[in-house]
Amino acid sequence: FESKLPNVGTTIFTIMSQLAVDHKAINLGQGFPDFSPDETLLDLVTQAMKEGHNQYPPMAGVVALRQQIALKVQALYGHQYDPETEITVTSGASEALMASILAFVRAGDEVIVIEPFYDLYIPVIELAGGKPVIVPMTAPTPQAPAYRVDWQRVRDAITSKTRMLILNFPHNPTCINLTPADLDSLESIVQETGILLLSDEVYEHLVYDDQPHQSVARRPLLAAHSIVVSSFGKTYSATGWKIGYCCAPKVISAEIRKVHQFNVFTVTSPMQVALAHYMKNEDAYLSLPAFYQQKRDRLLKGLANTRFVPMHSEGTFFLMADYSNISDLPEAEFARWITVEHGVGVIPVSAFYRQPDAPESNHGLIRFCFAKRDETLDTAIEKLAGI
Amino acid sequence: FESKLPNVGTTIFTIMSQLAVDHKAINLGQGFPDFSPDETLLDLVTQAMKEGHNQYPPMAGVVALRQQIALKVQALYGHQYDPETEITVTSGASEALMASILAFVRAGDEVIVIEPFYDLYIPVIELAGGKPVIVPMTAPTPQAPAYRVDWQRVRDAITSKTRMLILNFPHNPTCINLTPADLDSLESIVQETGILLLSDEVYEHLVYDDQPHQSVARRPLLAAHSIVVSSFGKTYSATGWKIGYCCAPKVISAEIRKVHQFNVFTVTSPMQVALAHYMKNEDAYLSLPAFYQQKRDRLLKGLANTRFVPMHSEGTFFLMADYSNISDLPEAEFARWITVEHGVGVIPVSAFYRQPDAPESNHGLIRFCFAKRDETLDTAIEKLAGI
Ligand SMILES: CSCCC(=O)C(=O)O
Ligand SMILES: CSCCC(=O)C(=O)O
Repeated sequence: FESKLPNVGTTIFTIMSQLAVDHKAINLGQGFPDFSPDETLLDLVTQAMKEGHNQYPPMAGVVALRQQIALKVQALYGHQYDPETEITVTSGASEALMASILAFVRAGDEVIVIEPFYDLYIPVIELAGGKPVIVPMTAPTPQAPAYRVDWQRVRDAITSKTRMLILNFPHNPTCINLTPADLDSLESIVQETGILLLSDEVYEHLVYDDQPHQSVARRPLLAAHSIVVSSFGKTYSATGWKIGYCCAPKVISAEIRKVHQFNVFTVTSPMQVALAHYMKNEDAYLSLPAFYQQKRDRLLKGLANTRFVPMHSEGTFFLMADYSNISDLPEAEFARWITVEHGVGVIPVSAFYRQPDAPESNHGLIRFCFAKRDETLDTAIEKLAGI
Repeated sequence: FESKLPNVGTTIFTIMSQLAVDHKAINLGQGFPDFSPDETLLDLVTQAMKEGHNQYPPMAGVVALRQQIALKVQALYGHQYDPETEITVTSGASEALMASILAFVRAGDEVIVIEPFYDLYIPVIELAGGKPVIVPMTAPTPQAPAYRVDWQRVRDAITSKTRMLILNFPHNPTCINLTPADLDSLESIVQETGILLLSDEVYEHLVYDDQPHQSVARRPLLAAHSIVVSSFGKTYSATGWKIGYCCAPKVISAEIRKVHQFNVFTVTSPMQVALAHYMKNEDAYLSLPAFYQQKRDRLLKGLANTRFVPMHSEGTFFLMADYSNISDLPEAEFARWITVEHGVGVIPVSAFYRQPDAPESNHGLIRFCFAKRDETLDTAIEKLAGI
């Protein structure tokens, strides 16, 4: 039979994690911490189970959790979402993205994706029958040594068929954040085109150097046109719990929930109840930038003694590094090689491009995840220094 | 804007549960136990969290859990699925159904659904762009007082456009099971047409009167053409954990996983690890028929002293009852009425029909869930006796 998703292989994160396991490599590839959530949070889950929170919670999520999300978003970004109708707890950010795309993208619709991009977007757009339209970021130059979005190019890509623009800042894998000027540009685009934004902000709490996260929820016009997606897994070091959420105006949320209720119906009850309690402690997310900045800097410092040339990371728990001093292998091959031969698992940045094997998608870059215990980072650095 | 799912309202189960909560009614509506899973299982979850199983498990599910599923299916139904390539752990049975339908149903494809049917199938088929083709069950008569499937009608509904046939036995809401003769008929249909079966067997362990569950996995030909879906929530009284799975031949599973990996990616890790341990105790599912049969019989006996006329339940944790001695209200109105006025939440059986409000979908039947503590059942029976 003919596949509906002929171009979909196993996701790069699974492939590289499996390779790391098979070769007993330190896994700095797939983005997950090698430590567990706060014991307090684990105990809250146990308590929730013992209290009997083991049956279906409400379809859109435990009410107290939605209320805490609303409070947090308002405190940080100023926008007030109604927990009853505008916030939906999902099976990780993934499901929020899936439900959003399936709810709004029809056969023939175009969806704009900024390249490089997280590997979920394109297959899901295609599954919905949509056509991804790719707008490349402006690559760094010696004069402007950071990736950036050329908003004029984004604007030019919008046609009458465009249904949605997907954003992902702090950005995986380039590790750049949006600036207030970027939000200005986005506002002009939305003003002019009325386009729907799907803003994947799973790294919202992982921003460094005292740069606050520029959520689209900071601007009323953007918020009115956006689905804002976030992840408790990334925030609270529980990627395996698969709990995320999305916030969007009522009419938009209503459509997302139509998909969500028949997709997973609802999300693990004891974890939701536990998170509702845990979120009352704002420090749990306010302390994250300092916690992860120390790890970023530890990895940066370590890499300074290797032949890798790290790039700056403004946000996420990743950083990219240039390996062109070491090898001119294509990224996928280099990534396999250092995993297998040097015991450090990484992700080739080319996997975030439409054509991973094309020369123009290969810039001699790999991505490291620094959401690891200090010992893990130190051991990895030692291995990297030997390459 | 125009909705992609204009006919989708909030699922009947949520509506009736909310009504029950609002009116402090005993909830015999939505299908979930009012007790918690075995303490042993809860403790295993706590242990898994403490042991550090809080990050992404493998995309297709924790390996040990898939192995246990394979062992169980082989022990019960004789079919050997390869845990590596043929079993996928999903976010409840819902996600398995969603991923299966999205993976195989294209715009214009027809999917056969037997009416009455669980409310998820039709919207998901429509979301995939498919066209549901509804084959009604044969209704009970005084001579043949049980619902049954007319396989000739099913066969006649298959055209060159038919992509899939959805089955759901033990059946929600009619509570009938398949017989070996039904499997024979299905075999002829599959032999002749090669049709793909999506077999929702979430109530596989809830079968009564010593009738074993007739899984499609009992017949090699059927297994080769089937996606078999099940649910840990229903089996282990943890509907809020949202863990299910599906078994299908490798080429079919590969397509389902393409959707699954970009839908939810994977499923709550500590629960998966705990279930892998817990499943080693076969008694946990082998004891279920006796456990629930006692509850079914308690409810049946109680209803004998009311004006409701219960129907036989061969499987599931539901039973239907005729209320025509009490009222000639349409089912939806009657269900609201007894929830609000008599404090017992139920589900109108008409909600399982394409046109819930049409006279031909209203047979004077409501559905009770007996997955409740004995005290709960007794209190409900008392209230029902007063009607
Ligand atoms: C679902 S696995 C991907 C984890 C991740 O977000 C990443 O590594 O980029
Ligand atoms: C997802 S809520 C539905 C529960 C159920 O299976 C039923 O009540 O029929």
